[in-house]
Amino acid sequence: MSKQQILWVTAIMAGLWAQPAPAQQQEPIQPIEPAVITEPAKVELGKKLFFDPRLSKSGAISCNSCHNLSMGGADNLKASIGHNWQQGGINSPTVLNSSLNIAQFWDGRAKDLREQAGGPIANPAEMASSHELAIQVLSSIPGYRAEFKQAFGTDAITIDEVTQALAAFEETLVTPNARFDQWLRGDAKALTVQELAGYNLFKSSGCVACHNGPAAGGNSFQKMGLVTPYQTANPAEGRAAVTGQDADRFMFKVPTLRNVALTYPYFHDGEAATLAEAVDVMGRLQLGRTFLPEENGQIVAFLKTLTGEQPVIKLPALPPSSDATPRPQPFNP
Amino acid sequence: MSKQQILWVTAIMAGLWAQPAPAQQQEPIQPIEPAVITEPAKVELGKKLFFDPRLSKSGAISCNSCHNLSMGGADNLKASIGHNWQQGGINSPTVLNSSLNIAQFWDGRAKDLREQAGGPIANPAEMASSHELAIQVLSSIPGYRAEFKQAFGTDAITIDEVTQALAAFEETLVTPNARFDQWLRGDAKALTVQELAGYNLFKSSGCVACHNGPAAGGNSFQKMGLVTPYQTANPAEGRAAVTGQDADRFMFKVPTLRNVALTYPYFHDGEAATLAEAVDVMGRLQLGRTFLPEENGQIVAFLKTLTGEQPVIKLPALPPSSDATPRPQPFNP
Repeated sequence: MSKQQILWVTAIMAGLWAQPAPAQQQEPIQPIEPAVITEPAKVELGKKLFFDPRLSKSGAISCNSCHNLSMGGADNLKASIGHNWQQGGINSPTVLNSSLNIAQFWDGRAKDLREQAGGPIANPAEMASSHELAIQVLSSIPGYRAEFKQAFGTDAITIDEVTQALAAFEETLVTPNARFDQWLRGDAKALTVQELAGYNLFKSSGCVACHNGPAAGGNSFQKMGLVTPYQTANPAEGRAAVTGQDADRFMFKVPTLRNVALTYPYFHDGEAATLAEAVDVMGRLQLGRTFLPEENGQIVAFLKTLTGEQPVIKLPALPPSSDATPRPQPFNP
Repeated sequence: MSKQQILWVTAIMAGLWAQPAPAQQQEPIQPIEPAVITEPAKVELGKKLFFDPRLSKSGAISCNSCHNLSMGGADNLKASIGHNWQQGGINSPTVLNSSLNIAQFWDGRAKDLREQAGGPIANPAEMASSHELAIQVLSSIPGYRAEFKQAFGTDAITIDEVTQALAAFEETLVTPNARFDQWLRGDAKALTVQELAGYNLFKSSGCVACHNGPAAGGNSFQKMGLVTPYQTANPAEGRAAVTGQDADRFMFKVPTLRNVALTYPYFHDGEAATLAEAVDVMGRLQLGRTFLPEENGQIVAFLKTLTGEQPVIKLPALPPSSDATPRPQPFNP
């Protein structure tokens, strides 16, 4: 039971809250819960792997390169930079609160974080390694052999263990206690008048139809350009690439709005540079509504209250390579 | 006064050490002292800048990209990867203990850390920004404006303040309490017989002529290939590029051997992949001596005792860009 929960229970037992539950409990967005770590060895190992560029062919790209935990779990670029400076095909979604997603990637082609984690390592346009090479590298590093053994109890390192550890770490990357969560939990002063007006407008104009739940998104696929078609040079097709169904063209996973003030630029093509622009485009294309400047400002003010406590990360000291470790190949094509 | 020093003073006053100072005090390598932080606001700001890729044109390369604090303060590549995946001209030296260097860069062209810090930001082959653009970016970020004001008391952000803050952070990146330091301070059991034999051979064969002082190097320029010329395809000329003197060709700053087990590959061209290879080449080219395999193994074992406590770094949460922040340009040439 969390400290918060204990306080509540104590208060309720003391009869302080003999009233009905606060109205906020019916809100369409719920508070983010803090992470509960049950397997610390896996989490610590996963953290090292997350920061380790040796999972890439070049020895220079780690998970943290595109999902930078100093920058809201994203890279703040329209498109990420892959091996040999290749331009990524889609905007990197934040890793923060990603365990709350219905599926992973914009098109949901990975069902969970474990399935996701194996993708970039072996993608020739991203980390450009292979699962075989990654395992060969990790298995050659005594420090990793010991940590995998501690976390999994086996001598052989497998890609399944790698993705399990990465997922275990990523599951800890939640951002509780945003000002909006404080308000949800009953602190009426946590939001300003403008922010609360923004939230009410966010609800009344229909944004919550897609951006709901603890992550304020991430839990459904929706069409980008529902009312008015979205114009973009980006060739990504959305769910259609997974299902093969023409009806799924431009169906993308609704991104979380948690920490959205940190995760610019916006949309799958990264074409909206600012929150004001993103809110304007969403209003017109998804809701058929042009927000007035004051309304836009209110919604943006509300969105900024969704920035939560960022995970406290002690930078890991990575175990050094051995003489037998395959060397990085940054400049071999 | 450190806890260690207090213990010594207490012990000396108690007459426990009425003997002459231990022999280790005459050793050519001295212990690394822990950092003393006198300006925490500058250090904290410098840490953020060190991790901030917005100091680069692409928005993707930070100081930590090539001086990775998870990897001994280096990137473990022969040559670093710069803007647009350009191949760097020389192996990235470690930032750890770099405040102990006589000068910065392999050729010593920067007299100190402040002068160094401005270089990569504006180098077209590295971060490819300019001091003007970097200042424009930082000045557009409210969180940075507040932190610069706190650290320097002024409203305008200048490149001089940026390099001051970076240097203040880098000065904290020392690695005390290596096993070798424990031995230097009198713990005879801190080294194995093999490691001690390696150290004695390191001294008796002349390695200490260049690798001495607290950093076991970093305090002089010496010719690479003193006895036998060094063959390399790398065009770096060493000090000659700074002094214009032909006599300074191939004079490079002697690298520190602190944390050398973490800072592979070795030499200015990164051509020695392993410590065994580096020791062998050094013996033959600098000392005219071919170490026997057992001797090589002893010296390598000694070198591994120079790995100190790595700096404890809490990953900074970088202040977000504003709508006015110039956007990264990763794919504009």
